[in-house]
Amino acid sequence: MNKQILIQVHDRVKPYIHQTPVLTSELINEICEAKVYFKCENFQKMGAFKMRGAANAVLSLTEAQRSKGVVTHSSGNFAQALSLAAKKIGVKAFIVMPENAPQVKKNAVKTYKGEIIECDSNPIAREEMAEKVRKETGATFIHPSNDDDVILGQGTAAMELLEEYPQLDYIFTPVGGGGLIAGTTLAAKYFSKNCKVIGGEPKNVDDAYRSLQSGKIEYNDSDSTTIADGLRTFLGDRNFPIIKEGVEKIIRVEEEDIMNAMKLVWERMKIIIESSSAVAVAALLKDKEEYKNREVGIIISGGNVDVTNLPF
Amino acid sequence: MNKQILIQVHDRVKPYIHQTPVLTSELINEICEAKVYFKCENFQKMGAFKMRGAANAVLSLTEAQRSKGVVTHSSGNFAQALSLAAKKIGVKAFIVMPENAPQVKKNAVKTYKGEIIECDSNPIAREEMAEKVRKETGATFIHPSNDDDVILGQGTAAMELLEEYPQLDYIFTPVGGGGLIAGTTLAAKYFSKNCKVIGGEPKNVDDAYRSLQSGKIEYNDSDSTTIADGLRTFLGDRNFPIIKEGVEKIIRVEEEDIMNAMKLVWERMKIIIESSSAVAVAALLKDKEEYKNREVGIIISGGNVDVTNLPF
Repeated sequence: MNKQILIQVHDRVKPYIHQTPVLTSELINEICEAKVYFKCENFQKMGAFKMRGAANAVLSLTEAQRSKGVVTHSSGNFAQALSLAAKKIGVKAFIVMPENAPQVKKNAVKTYKGEIIECDSNPIAREEMAEKVRKETGATFIHPSNDDDVILGQGTAAMELLEEYPQLDYIFTPVGGGGLIAGTTLAAKYFSKNCKVIGGEPKNVDDAYRSLQSGKIEYNDSDSTTIADGLRTFLGDRNFPIIKEGVEKIIRVEEEDIMNAMKLVWERMKIIIESSSAVAVAALLKDKEEYKNREVGIIISGGNVDVTNLPF
Repeated sequence: MNKQILIQVHDRVKPYIHQTPVLTSELINEICEAKVYFKCENFQKMGAFKMRGAANAVLSLTEAQRSKGVVTHSSGNFAQALSLAAKKIGVKAFIVMPENAPQVKKNAVKTYKGEIIECDSNPIAREEMAEKVRKETGATFIHPSNDDDVILGQGTAAMELLEEYPQLDYIFTPVGGGGLIAGTTLAAKYFSKNCKVIGGEPKNVDDAYRSLQSGKIEYNDSDSTTIADGLRTFLGDRNFPIIKEGVEKIIRVEEEDIMNAMKLVWERMKIIIESSSAVAVAALLKDKEEYKNREVGIIISGGNVDVTNLPF
């Protein structure tokens, strides 16, 4: 990977994504005594940065691969992202989802013409079902976060942010499966002089924090829960080396901090951000003394929230 | 009033307001089969367009008047707007509020250094108390909507929208006290060829609709309620003549339509709009057949919502 490849990826996905706006808030700047720039991927197509990686992955297929479609397992934003990207590019998408996934998420995938295949609700059943679909249909498997094309696609958000604000000292992102923070790390490496990447992670599912400590991929207890549900996933062999080499550190935050950060952004910035995005904001707020007088970007990862069922 | 005056007003308030962004939504364009432009005053300072009118009113005072302060009666956005505008300009603000106003609204006024004077919770008590404060302090009374400087200030939102999108066929606004729709009517008259202004009003408090029918200012029953609480106010002698001459029509919407429009914008555009703003969106959705293939602006009036107490 190098700078030129990321530029090519951006050119390739551009027609399929929004160049999202960067917002600022006087109040949040005052609270942090810093200049904070929110890269609003909640305004991205289908409501999350995942559209970038999904579009790049589908666009990177050969003609022969495109004719057989793509398959993934996800009950979250990547399910929608891959469905929409595939639809726009004219490729079939098979989405393996746990049978107990919320109906609203299944409906979103159906809106984007993804074909849902249900499976039992555990990580092994998901992977087995995706493999079965792959074998039967010849579709190409695309992992939601542990895939080079996906990682590069996600990196285009930070690339756009740095093109607009090349002076940033730091970029904060949430950490779940590692695709976004790995892509952001590459973008910071190629498009800034010395911008450092910081991860925010819920303390309840701090696998990435522990992975950086131990030097190997760590996992969460299967019964761990967090209101930032999308961040319960773990790192993979494609993104972990990038994260290990390039990420400055990971800041862990409590559930209450996540909720307060989410409410602060909703109330004061008037934008809807999902709990995963609030984790990155909460990480900055927690250690704000350290970032005083600095210029800090935050990737607001998405805005897909069930507004009838809020944590506050 | 003329074009030149509105340009002067805009120049005067510019340092005190945000030039708010205009957002669009592919989905809402599809639903309406029209091009819809959302002028996002929810991103305005203190969260609503009222900052424009308040700033213009305070800036229009003489030095002698400034030294004695301003007074208004409002339990809503204008209370915050006048407090903040006065604070920024270095003028004292007295805010008459009903004693039973929500603590969150009182706190917001206090944050902006407005001095709260409590009164009984009825329109006559409010006016009497404001008059008492005016006499005792020498402060200038500024009405939230029935004041020429306020009306002109509110018009700068539509002026900015038309400068960016001069081709608009229609602009929708909510109708409460009439300041926004009157200002918008002036802006459409001076800054477009033939852009028509349409009001949205809750059916439960349709005083403006009835006023246009009868040709004189009508009122609502004191026990009428709506989730768009800020629109329960009535028109005044300064704004009604402008509205009567220039507004194309007023569309009335049901409570359920308001709630659905609010939820649609939250979920699909990922922005927080208050119920009053949703009234304008609901009005367009209700009669969308009529605006097919047209270019339609909507003034999203504000985003001040108690997120812990939503109507859905």
